[in-house]
Amino acid sequence: MATIISVKKEFTELIKNYQNKIIAELERLDGKALFQIEPWEKEDLGNGLTAVIQQGNIFEKGGVNTSFVGGKLPPALQQSFNVAHENYFACGISCVIHPYNPHCPTIHFNYRYFELYDHNGAVADAWFGGGTDLTPYYIYTDDAVHFHESLQQACNQVNSNFYTTFKKNCDQYFHNTHRGETRGIGGIFYDYQRANSQTSANDFMRLAERCLQAFIQAYSAIITRRCTTAFTDSEKYFHLIRRGRYVEFNLIHDRGTLFGLKTGGRIESILMSLPPEVRWDYNYPIHENSREAELVHVLKHPKDWV
Amino acid sequence: MATIISVKKEFTELIKNYQNKIIAELERLDGKALFQIEPWEKEDLGNGLTAVIQQGNIFEKGGVNTSFVGGKLPPALQQSFNVAHENYFACGISCVIHPYNPHCPTIHFNYRYFELYDHNGAVADAWFGGGTDLTPYYIYTDDAVHFHESLQQACNQVNSNFYTTFKKNCDQYFHNTHRGETRGIGGIFYDYQRANSQTSANDFMRLAERCLQAFIQAYSAIITRRCTTAFTDSEKYFHLIRRGRYVEFNLIHDRGTLFGLKTGGRIESILMSLPPEVRWDYNYPIHENSREAELVHVLKHPKDWV
Repeated sequence: MATIISVKKEFTELIKNYQNKIIAELERLDGKALFQIEPWEKEDLGNGLTAVIQQGNIFEKGGVNTSFVGGKLPPALQQSFNVAHENYFACGISCVIHPYNPHCPTIHFNYRYFELYDHNGAVADAWFGGGTDLTPYYIYTDDAVHFHESLQQACNQVNSNFYTTFKKNCDQYFHNTHRGETRGIGGIFYDYQRANSQTSANDFMRLAERCLQAFIQAYSAIITRRCTTAFTDSEKYFHLIRRGRYVEFNLIHDRGTLFGLKTGGRIESILMSLPPEVRWDYNYPIHENSREAELVHVLKHPKDWV
Repeated sequence: MATIISVKKEFTELIKNYQNKIIAELERLDGKALFQIEPWEKEDLGNGLTAVIQQGNIFEKGGVNTSFVGGKLPPALQQSFNVAHENYFACGISCVIHPYNPHCPTIHFNYRYFELYDHNGAVADAWFGGGTDLTPYYIYTDDAVHFHESLQQACNQVNSNFYTTFKKNCDQYFHNTHRGETRGIGGIFYDYQRANSQTSANDFMRLAERCLQAFIQAYSAIITRRCTTAFTDSEKYFHLIRRGRYVEFNLIHDRGTLFGLKTGGRIESILMSLPPEVRWDYNYPIHENSREAELVHVLKHPKDWV
């Protein structure tokens, strides 16, 4: 078996660097609110930096978090990873942004790196995961195409097959199975990507970096285009109802959220992803041929945008 | 092995009867909104009657549902019940009420009956489950005592050990483990209760009936006492934050909700339990010695109220 190269140090540096860049860009876009920055440390778990923006001009709530955790793998996760290794290290950067205006989409990304150790402390396994996905409340084709193209270009820098595979993964993963709908219009999603003869650990690092750059570029452009669009009370109401679906996905289906809760993660940092204001009405009506119906149609029939 | 007596017909009648009684009582209390009544039927699953009240004088959202489902047991549930039986029948009445006023507690109950069949269609197993629990946002000791005493008296009609056991079950079950808090101030909860030499199937029917009566009596009294209490904007804000915890419990931990979602139940009826308006803020502050801190203390240290 070939020795596994650890990029723990390099990946840590990469995500700390991008956390700062992204915070600066989102503050620039918002023009009012600043991020509250909170470093945290939990014994026997690890540490992280939670950065939250609330009640801005544009961003009602959002966060850009990094975390660096490790130790003994909880039994529930040993089973779900199907491994006997007892010790792990995981680090990642994750972000969720909920703008106030229903014409501005919610965005989420997460890029992470995972290592498992054998009984001598040597790296026994290591993999990369990540993804970025967009959740609009009103469909703008140019935004959707722009977003997907930027991710396709990022993927193509590393491997020309990645975008197609990861786009399909994303539609499958961000699926509210109980509703028969995707969470949004997708993006990319990958997990358990190990360095191999075709793609090195450095390539996977570069993939994460390109995708983080794509986030900054595409989301800034989309927000700039939409943040001054006027909206009605009924559009805002629909926004709150759809945010309920976002909560349903995160609490019922999302592996990242469940991983955090099972490993005794910092609750306020994990649940930072939940929207600030949400509604659940019984049988909320969607009128035929409306823009609301257009969204629901797209979520029930995922499209190829590029 | 003794033959198992089926009370499918009798339990069905009981819960239909109480659905009507409870709807009438809640409409009387509210004095404005009427329940929307929707019968539903799903092929290969069963039927039910969903009754929802929205935007009343007192009740912002609530439902009283009955359902009667059966057929082939989904594989995931065969495993969780650890049985090889392929066919089941389940019926139940469930209710969640979210008043607008933060001084009025949310209430939930569910009383249900379950049968499993062998390959000849004979009843191979049958059990009862149920419970009622109260989720106040501000603690009123007289309400909490009144509520628990009414359930204790209902239980004592059948078995003097039940209340103590079921009260403890309830605190254990309605526990947001990730928050280290109970959902509310408990009540009673029981499951997998099979007829035996001490307690017959008829006794378990009577238990459900007494508990449904206790709900009508105690909740009406509590709502009548609290519904005119004035509240501040900050009390309402706290209410919305705490409703977030209610959503967290229902979507992450609640077996009833997960059972419904796994058996392909009717989503709008299952998720009727979610509050209408909810907030998630990052690190919402609780001030020392406040009434909000009093609530959180009680949820972290469940009390014996009677």
